[in-house]
This record gives sequence, structure tokens and C-alpha cells, in this order.
Amino acid sequence: MLLTIRLARPPDEDAIWSILEPILRAGETYALPRDWSRDEALRYWFADCHEVFVAEDEGEVVGCYYLQPNQRGGGAHVANCGYVTGTTSSGRGIATAMCEHSLRHAAERGFRAMQFNFVVRTNERAVRLWKRLGFDIVGEIPKAFNHPDLGLVDALVMYRRLP
Amino acid sequence: MLLTIRLARPPDEDAIWSILEPILRAGETYALPRDWSRDEALRYWFADCHEVFVAEDEGEVVGCYYLQPNQRGGGAHVANCGYVTGTTSSGRGIATAMCEHSLRHAAERGFRAMQFNFVVRTNERAVRLWKRLGFDIVGEIPKAFNHPDLGLVDALVMYRRLP
Repeated sequence: MLLTIRLARPPDEDAIWSILEPILRAGETYALPRDWSRDEALRYWFADCHEVFVAEDEGEVVGCYYLQPNQRGGGAHVANCGYVTGTTSSGRGIATAMCEHSLRHAAERGFRAMQFNFVVRTNERAVRLWKRLGFDIVGEIPKAFNHPDLGLVDALVMYRRLP
Repeated sequence: MLLTIRLARPPDEDAIWSILEPILRAGETYALPRDWSRDEALRYWFADCHEVFVAEDEGEVVGCYYLQPNQRGGGAHVANCGYVTGTTSSGRGIATAMCEHSLRHAAERGFRAMQFNFVVRTNERAVRLWKRLGFDIVGEIPKAFNHPDLGLVDALVMYRRLP
């Protein structure tokens, strides 16, 4: 695997949608409508405030992420990201590579910290990964997420400072 | 004081802006741009997903709040609100009345809980009030808010269930 991470371009939309669609439909990890159309999903992913990157493995887009300020005004020094990896590509370190890239890039842009607002607790793989990458759990919201199989489960707020 | 809380209407915009403007300009409590114009502030306050109420004291708008789902999809059962009180009207129980109204209204709309994502810790009056109204601190985000006088201060995530 030779992973390249670069800014997303309009021709990447098909690949990004093919990654997003199964994740939205499953409804297990993102608090987003399960029935969103391609247009609705891409409008969200490419929101004006989002800077979007893709991870490419030998020309194939295998993951993508967005970076944005988590708040405005007095909260604009803390970054926020959302990452997705193609279901057929999971377990290959792509999320790790994207997160490391986002931490470097956020620091370069002058952000002082990174915050995830809503990590579904049952998404154990993600929680473990973010911990390994230096994030602490700074909040636990009881029953904040309605999991399609497990019912109401907690969501975590995770945070780390940037160098 | 005879407080009425009702849905906001377009003619309330002047009054709402006159309440919002000093709060935005002060930049001490809301993570919103301090330099927002009237149009930008009202567009935010009246976002499509916001249901907006005003508190009226004998015909004068003395406070307002919005209610929205805090997340979409699997997180849409938790409500979120933002409240503002006119600076000349503070200390008269208007925020309490608006919050109580919002808790009732959110429960009626079927929300299961209410969450505040970003309560600036130095806004002690607000923290005390939300605690009194049944909210718990479920998260503490270090140095999440750049206060104009105090520098980087923590922000709290506060949460309560609805009946």
C-alpha cells in the first residue's frame, strides 16, 4: 500500500459517495440521516467550512476526511474532523494515516487542539484508535445515540492538544 | 413582570437583534463571531432547523431562545437550545422562564434529553442556573474558549434527561 493524502477535487465525488453511502445507510457510527441522498451527503461533506482530503492508494480513493473549526468566534482555535474509510479497506491503517495527517495539517493551520464531539461509544475501534493517537475522553453523553441494533448508547467527546 | 413566551415572528427581528448584538460584541459567552452583522446573526438565529421563541414582558421582547435537534440521524432525540436575555433585563428570572419553557416544549416534541455543547465555564451565572434546572456537567473541554479578557478558558457540556 502506498498511501497519498491530498485535497479532494470535484472528480473524487463518486468515490467519496461510494465510501459514505454504506456508512450512512448502516447508521452505526455517524449521527447523520440514514436516508440521505448522494446530493445531501456530498453537500454536507463539502460544506463551505470543511476542508476535504482524500486518501489514495495507487490511484484509488480509499478514505476521506474533512477538517473544520469546531466552533466560531472564541472557539475557532479548536479543530474538528470527520473521517471515513471504505468498508473494503478497513484494518489497513488508513484512518490512522488520515488522522495523523489531519493533526499535522490542523497544527499548521494554527489550531491549538482537536475535538471530536460525538464518538459513538460502541464504535470501539474508533475509540481505541483515537486514544492511541493521543485523544482523551473529556465528556460522556448518556444515551446520546440511537444505534439501529443496540438502541440508546452513549457518545463520547474526545480531545487532544496540538503541538 | 408578566412574562409571555411565544413563537418569534418576523416583526420581532429588531428586538432580537438589539438583544443579540451586545452579547455578540462582548464575545464572552457565545462562540460566535464578534463582528457578525445583523443579517449574519439573524440568519444564524433563524436557521431552518431552529424553532425560535421570544419572552415578552408587557409587549416588550426581553429575551429569546432557539430549540433544535442537537444532532441528526441517530442523535436527533436530544435537543439543544441557545438563550439570550436583554442586558437591561438580566436578573429577573427570564432565562429561567425560557429554559423551563424549552424543557417542556422539547418534551412535548418528543425529545428525550437536552444538551448544551458549549457553556463557557467563566459564565458562572449560566452554569449555576443550568445546574439548578437539572443539568449535569457531562464534559469539560480544556481551554476551548478564548475569552476576550481572561484568555483560554474551559467549556462545559451540560445535559439533562427530559420527562
